[in-house]
Amino acid sequence: MARGEELFAAIRGEAPSLFDRNRWVGQVMDWCMRNEEFKLRLFRFVDVFPSLSTDESFTRHLAEYFGAEDQDLPAVLKWGARSAGRGGKLGAAILNRFIRHNIEAMAHQFILAEESEKAVEKLNKLRQDGFAFSVDLLGEATVNEEEAGQYVESNLALLRGLDEAQASWESLPGTGPAPDADWGHAPSVNLSVKPTACYSQTRPQDFEGSVAAILARLEPIYEKVIGMGGFLCLDMETWQTKGITQELFRRLRSNHRDYPHLGIALQSYLRDTDGDLADLVAWANREKSSISVRLVKGAYWDFETIRAGQNGWPSPVYTRKAETDAAFERHARKILENQDICHLACGSHNIRSIAAVMETAAALGVPEDRYEFQVLYGMAEPVRKALLSTAGRVRLYCPLGEMIPGMAYLVRRLLENTANTSFLRQSFAEGEATERLLIDPAEQIPHDESSAEVNVASPSMAGGSGDLPPFRNRPAVNFALENEREAFRRALAEVRGGLGHVYPLYIGGEERKTEKLADSVNPADPEEVVGRVCLAGLPEAEEALDAARRVFPAWRDTPARERAGYLLKAAELARQRRANLAAWQVLEIGKQWDQADADVAEAVDFLVYYAGEMLRLEEGPVIGEVPGEENRYVYQPKGIAAVIAPWNFPLAISCGMAAAALVTGNCVLFKPSSLTPVTGRLLTELFRDAGLPPGVFNFLPGPGGSIGEFLVSHPDIALIAFTGSMDVGLNIIRRAAEPRSGQSLVKKVVAEMGGKNAIIIDDDADLDEAVPQVIASTFSFQGQKCSACSRVIVLDTVYNLFVNRLVKAAAALKIGPAEDPANTLGPVADETARQKIFDYIELGKAEGELLFTGEIPRGRGWYVPPTIIGGIRPDHRLAREEIFGPVLAVMRAADFDQAIAWANATPFALTGGVFSRSPAHLDRARREFNVGNLYFNRPCTAAMVGRQPFGGFHLSGTGTKAGGPDYLLHFMDPRVITENTMRRGFAPTLPGNRGDATPVS
Amino acid sequence: MARGEELFAAIRGEAPSLFDRNRWVGQVMDWCMRNEEFKLRLFRFVDVFPSLSTDESFTRHLAEYFGAEDQDLPAVLKWGARSAGRGGKLGAAILNRFIRHNIEAMAHQFILAEESEKAVEKLNKLRQDGFAFSVDLLGEATVNEEEAGQYVESNLALLRGLDEAQASWESLPGTGPAPDADWGHAPSVNLSVKPTACYSQTRPQDFEGSVAAILARLEPIYEKVIGMGGFLCLDMETWQTKGITQELFRRLRSNHRDYPHLGIALQSYLRDTDGDLADLVAWANREKSSISVRLVKGAYWDFETIRAGQNGWPSPVYTRKAETDAAFERHARKILENQDICHLACGSHNIRSIAAVMETAAALGVPEDRYEFQVLYGMAEPVRKALLSTAGRVRLYCPLGEMIPGMAYLVRRLLENTANTSFLRQSFAEGEATERLLIDPAEQIPHDESSAEVNVASPSMAGGSGDLPPFRNRPAVNFALENEREAFRRALAEVRGGLGHVYPLYIGGEERKTEKLADSVNPADPEEVVGRVCLAGLPEAEEALDAARRVFPAWRDTPARERAGYLLKAAELARQRRANLAAWQVLEIGKQWDQADADVAEAVDFLVYYAGEMLRLEEGPVIGEVPGEENRYVYQPKGIAAVIAPWNFPLAISCGMAAAALVTGNCVLFKPSSLTPVTGRLLTELFRDAGLPPGVFNFLPGPGGSIGEFLVSHPDIALIAFTGSMDVGLNIIRRAAEPRSGQSLVKKVVAEMGGKNAIIIDDDADLDEAVPQVIASTFSFQGQKCSACSRVIVLDTVYNLFVNRLVKAAAALKIGPAEDPANTLGPVADETARQKIFDYIELGKAEGELLFTGEIPRGRGWYVPPTIIGGIRPDHRLAREEIFGPVLAVMRAADFDQAIAWANATPFALTGGVFSRSPAHLDRARREFNVGNLYFNRPCTAAMVGRQPFGGFHLSGTGTKAGGPDYLLHFMDPRVITENTMRRGFAPTLPGNRGDATPVS
Repeated sequence: MARGEELFAAIRGEAPSLFDRNRWVGQVMDWCMRNEEFKLRLFRFVDVFPSLSTDESFTRHLAEYFGAEDQDLPAVLKWGARSAGRGGKLGAAILNRFIRHNIEAMAHQFILAEESEKAVEKLNKLRQDGFAFSVDLLGEATVNEEEAGQYVESNLALLRGLDEAQASWESLPGTGPAPDADWGHAPSVNLSVKPTACYSQTRPQDFEGSVAAILARLEPIYEKVIGMGGFLCLDMETWQTKGITQELFRRLRSNHRDYPHLGIALQSYLRDTDGDLADLVAWANREKSSISVRLVKGAYWDFETIRAGQNGWPSPVYTRKAETDAAFERHARKILENQDICHLACGSHNIRSIAAVMETAAALGVPEDRYEFQVLYGMAEPVRKALLSTAGRVRLYCPLGEMIPGMAYLVRRLLENTANTSFLRQSFAEGEATERLLIDPAEQIPHDESSAEVNVASPSMAGGSGDLPPFRNRPAVNFALENEREAFRRALAEVRGGLGHVYPLYIGGEERKTEKLADSVNPADPEEVVGRVCLAGLPEAEEALDAARRVFPAWRDTPARERAGYLLKAAELARQRRANLAAWQVLEIGKQWDQADADVAEAVDFLVYYAGEMLRLEEGPVIGEVPGEENRYVYQPKGIAAVIAPWNFPLAISCGMAAAALVTGNCVLFKPSSLTPVTGRLLTELFRDAGLPPGVFNFLPGPGGSIGEFLVSHPDIALIAFTGSMDVGLNIIRRAAEPRSGQSLVKKVVAEMGGKNAIIIDDDADLDEAVPQVIASTFSFQGQKCSACSRVIVLDTVYNLFVNRLVKAAAALKIGPAEDPANTLGPVADETARQKIFDYIELGKAEGELLFTGEIPRGRGWYVPPTIIGGIRPDHRLAREEIFGPVLAVMRAADFDQAIAWANATPFALTGGVFSRSPAHLDRARREFNVGNLYFNRPCTAAMVGRQPFGGFHLSGTGTKAGGPDYLLHFMDPRVITENTMRRGFAPTLPGNRGDATPVS
Repeated sequence: MARGEELFAAIRGEAPSLFDRNRWVGQVMDWCMRNEEFKLRLFRFVDVFPSLSTDESFTRHLAEYFGAEDQDLPAVLKWGARSAGRGGKLGAAILNRFIRHNIEAMAHQFILAEESEKAVEKLNKLRQDGFAFSVDLLGEATVNEEEAGQYVESNLALLRGLDEAQASWESLPGTGPAPDADWGHAPSVNLSVKPTACYSQTRPQDFEGSVAAILARLEPIYEKVIGMGGFLCLDMETWQTKGITQELFRRLRSNHRDYPHLGIALQSYLRDTDGDLADLVAWANREKSSISVRLVKGAYWDFETIRAGQNGWPSPVYTRKAETDAAFERHARKILENQDICHLACGSHNIRSIAAVMETAAALGVPEDRYEFQVLYGMAEPVRKALLSTAGRVRLYCPLGEMIPGMAYLVRRLLENTANTSFLRQSFAEGEATERLLIDPAEQIPHDESSAEVNVASPSMAGGSGDLPPFRNRPAVNFALENEREAFRRALAEVRGGLGHVYPLYIGGEERKTEKLADSVNPADPEEVVGRVCLAGLPEAEEALDAARRVFPAWRDTPARERAGYLLKAAELARQRRANLAAWQVLEIGKQWDQADADVAEAVDFLVYYAGEMLRLEEGPVIGEVPGEENRYVYQPKGIAAVIAPWNFPLAISCGMAAAALVTGNCVLFKPSSLTPVTGRLLTELFRDAGLPPGVFNFLPGPGGSIGEFLVSHPDIALIAFTGSMDVGLNIIRRAAEPRSGQSLVKKVVAEMGGKNAIIIDDDADLDEAVPQVIASTFSFQGQKCSACSRVIVLDTVYNLFVNRLVKAAAALKIGPAEDPANTLGPVADETARQKIFDYIELGKAEGELLFTGEIPRGRGWYVPPTIIGGIRPDHRLAREEIFGPVLAVMRAADFDQAIAWANATPFALTGGVFSRSPAHLDRARREFNVGNLYFNRPCTAAMVGRQPFGGFHLSGTGTKAGGPDYLLHFMDPRVITENTMRRGFAPTLPGNRGDATPVS
């Protein structure tokens, strides 16, 4: 407390320039702190700002974010211009100039310089002021290997420049016995790098590959650092790559055992950090390698919280500021306690935290060369001044680079300063009492819930009724965790051990073998038989239909709650068998680990969501009642349902269609795709093991020509749920509508068909996001999703930049068996598909221009290279026909109007995407971009049950929405039951003031 | 007050036998007053009781109403049996005997006797006790003319019996100067009759016909009464026939000007009674005819309240007991003030009311022969005793008749005694202080809301959102009101004056004439041309499609609120034009007044309901959200809709389909039926005058072969809304599913087709209700409704009784032009329909047995006689094919199982009905009677928007429900728009304890 008061006293009356309300930035910070809506708009405007290269674009965005009229514009934005004495209505050009200038000035508050030469100059100045530095090169969003390589090169160039310069530097004050080093022990050149920026294909499930690739790029940097006697610090980024960064640190440290100047950043806001730090210290002791830790609290709290919420993962960060502050002190103490082998860089602006570190170090008798203080350039100037005068050893973290990559950094800094719990805000903007600011954070954590997690997902409708909890998506497996990777490898090995078995039909609750078998093979090696499946003939189909007909009345009359119970039981089984169910898909259809896992998670989601939906719908909607009349609106199943499933989501889509049919009380005849009958069989086992009554669910693998035709045309089939190609779908719709003798119903068809999905890249798009997300939308699972992007429509002004980055990003993709997590692309489904896709590639070369095509592995696998075709126009076949493979057509649009028109110019209407930071353009797309699932600033694939109910219209489908609140309605018929409840003039529920009524006498 | 206290003092310590808890009935009343659920079950059980002719049936119903096990049965029901000393488990037969005995005893509490001889005996006894009487013959539910005739005959026979008996009667005590009359002035024989029981076809809209028919039957009764020097009182029944009863009183009184002994009952609970009484007194003075009024408070309060609520009419009765009580005193005073020409019978058990009458009479000096007191037989014995000792002139109202007709009377009495506000309950069961019971009721009415109406309809879902009020059905016109009848006659005359005009097409907002005209004629006289309509050819159809295509994007993007506004405007116009729109239908398609009016009201309902629904759906359902992601689930129109309409609800169904298409943002090409193009044109004018933008709604009358085919097959038609026959519907479905070149959508068909609707008559059905409601379901609008009953499935045990009553009820129906409100049936739609129906009648004669066929008027009208065919089995064509005319197939089922199986044994599933008082059978029907609209104990027609969403499945339709909460969904495609709202790690809506989060430093 005394140390803290002392530090506060040293800076009494001073404020960081950021809060100086005589400056524009101070005014803006003030507005942000008082107005959340303004803050949101401003931060977003700051984000898009560097992309607004023309005055027209700047003016338009300014209007869209803040209002079209001069008077709408918040006064603070006009601040500089007004005070420039012009008064009255401002010309747009003048206004723009002022605002541009102000925002650039704000960025320069935090960013040392845009290029190296200028940076070196500024670093000289800082050293003259007594501060050490660490430089950090902005531009970590490397989307392809060229950019990753440039990042490395730029760092090397920066090091060369610093090497030249350092000869001329004088030692910092306080430097004693070793004049070559600052403060007698610290290298003057200190570089911070973001490891993931060195390799564009860093992926947690490819842990080993990622580590190796990054290490290969880091080595030259570190060697250069060593050569010039400098210091290298590995910055910590997000939690997801934390393990990779720590592994890199250990390898790099081991590789250069004798050179001690290597640091790693640890983030105290992570719940993992106690363990990680202990491991690191133990490792250092074991290896007898000293380590240097830059301890920070962490700058990605919002991001980590959001990502965890989106994935349904536990939040990796503390949810209370005090928990983080306490952890910081705890971690610092741990490092200081291990002073023999640890060096601490204390990275905080918080005077309580700084004072605690100072006093702990003093109490433990830690020598000065074992710890230093770091603050961010441009932040908290009074604090750094106090530190300099007190401790002396202060290093400024100095970012360096251009405006576009700098904006992410700028927004993080603005967030940091304006958050309610920000120490800086509380200290300098709000004048909180120093006693309060200096309270021990450990005392501020409520005991009973110190490790509470933020539960951030809001429930969807399902399950609100009944006693089911609100629906939440099953979280994806987090392959950043080694135990999850290990579990998946084990499941793959198990599945491999069980290949080639024979699988029977399942009819009327009994396993039925037939003579005729079909092989299901591994598309990465078609000679490998995954399983052999008995085929149903017409007698078996008739038998299954009989079984279904027999059990239907009982199943229909089974309470909805009980039917839902079977789904929940199947979901439970699927959760237990999760890795196994995913591993089979890896081998049967070539899904990558995460894709296969997502398919299983989606199947679980369908089961749980539809169970909840059925409980909701069981009640029926409220309809009007009048006295003496009771009206009930209820739903009943249609009868026998045929479920005709695709191979691309062999478990999820099959399971979804079947679960919807079952839970609504229909009996199901399930025909899996001929390419994935083993997965179909696994679905059957889920329902069988969940205990569904015999005949309710029947497994009928067989050819479309006979079994498919039987299911579509039999007069007793009431409902056909189909997902697959447009041609087959339209034929089913046509055949189902033909009245047949003996048919006493109108067949219902729920069909999800193809897509020709486009993503629009607006001229203000964030390309760091757009490039990898278009890549993911186009090439994940080899483009074999109905939702996959197959057209990208790029606005003229960003065309070259975007396409250049995109092509190089595609070139970085690895192709090979899906079993190997290093591969981003695997084989396509079968030889027919392969040939068809190659034909389209040839067609694309003829219609347009081949921008890129990849290399495919040798061998028997059905591989197709990822391919990008430019120069495509709306009338080209490549712009209109579904390819269902890793082929992307690139279209260059003059403006957003044309982009929307082209996006709509297909007979499909399934998914679409827009990358834009123009609110007006997004609004326009909301209205006019005519697809079932429209995505803004994210991939156009990976719809989640309950969150992105999935499906399209036009020729993409029948306008149903799987995983949505209307889906089950398509599987049922509504009935209304009206009872006259009045008998002899007397009714039970007469509303109104009955008690005061007038019965006679 | 003093008089009241005196009366109370006179009876201190006494209680009506009904509340004597030493008797079973007293125990039961006690249970009823403490337990609403028991009361409901008991009253319902009492209601069904006389129909339970076998022990098996009795036992089953007892279990269904009160519980299957001995221990479930409420103790009170076992009361007699237990006290009979048998203890332990009771045998069913013994229990039944006791319960039967007890209920019968309860009935005999109120009903004098079951037949005349016994009654006369009992009346002798009453006279010996000093009471006068009025006898009332139960059995007023006369469903056919034979029964009405029997009612008259029975009254005459009763009078003959009384005439014989009266010779032997001694005068009542207090009889002075004229020993032939009681009390010196009152005839000893006093008969109460229910006028409507004299004529089974009493209908408010046929006021004159009803009055004339009843009068003809009343005359012989009154002549007999006059002949024997007796008194006749016309009982007042429900409000709906009040005008008829009052008119009958005036005519009968005028016809027998010199015989003063005619009375009429007036009900003080009616808001109308002040006016009615004043009119009657004025009439009496004008005519110089004395009148006698039996003033009662009214016994149908629940019924009146419920019926008003169901029709959306203002409640005709006061909603506060005190208002009625105050009105009673007011009315009594008015009559007593006019003592010179009025005689009062004070009909109340309420000591306050009685005391008030006594004191008013005394104050006004009314002679004793100008007023008397009446109470009900079996009720309030202490009150009648006190009256006898005080006033002396007490007449008991004595019902007489069998158990079945007696039950309605019994339930009214039970209600009266057990209602919270019952004076008897308060006085004798609850021991309320006499001061409170004697408070002036006028002082108990809150001043500010004394005429408040009970608003009894509960809102349906629609309109809950937005600023629309909750949806309520447009009330039917109440033809009991003379001004409404007059308005309708005027509208008919106006329409007649405008026959034969030429009507153009309406395309792209413009009136378009074509050369080719088609005549629409009056089916009651096909030579009468109602209107001449221009026919569209293919060029006009193309033109309309072009217009729709052009305006579609703008219409789609018009805010839902604005689109809904056009519907509300059209609804407003339809309300203004209501009588006119109905009158056109009377002439164009032969709808009866009430049917035509209901069609217009339904059109208004569709407009208002869908407007509200669209506002509700505009929001979209809630779907799951996670931080950093915004998901919106929205609906958009499908495109251009073809609306292909039927002739049977030419405004309502056309309007409903079109309104749904429009409000959801589709553009409409509307093809009316060739039989009702003028009504179609009137619909067009509603939309035109509501200001719909040009091209949004287009009117395209034309032949199905060309225009219909164009609308079904054109590749740009996204949606076809069709209502009509199964053959046409299935063909549309088939044709719409054929993929066509240039078609880039899957056509959606919303089809409502035929029905072969059955009503089941269970063996415990209330036949008084079942007969007229089967008649209404079958024959209203000549059976030309898809909902019409065309099969009645009657359980063996009630077959003869039901069918006998039914056939005679059919025979009472009048057939002729719909213009004349006396006719229940009019002509069918056209010659083709007529011929087809006649063919089915011939087929029916061959397949079964002709039970009844009516006479049809001569002349040119397309009349078909109402026809009933017996002996039909499920495999007969008459049991399976839709006839669409006034032909009913009767099937005799062995039991309820068979009845349900037969009801389901058609390819249709539209409407159905069950008349049953067995909760278990109703539950079974709820589950197993497989139709879209199922009705219990009411007609199977006349579904109301929002209350009975209408439509069927199987071959009856596509499982849509017009006027229901899911209907609009069929006209739209759902879209999901997902925005990644996280930029640079920052998202606007991060939930959780953000304020306490951990951003860095």
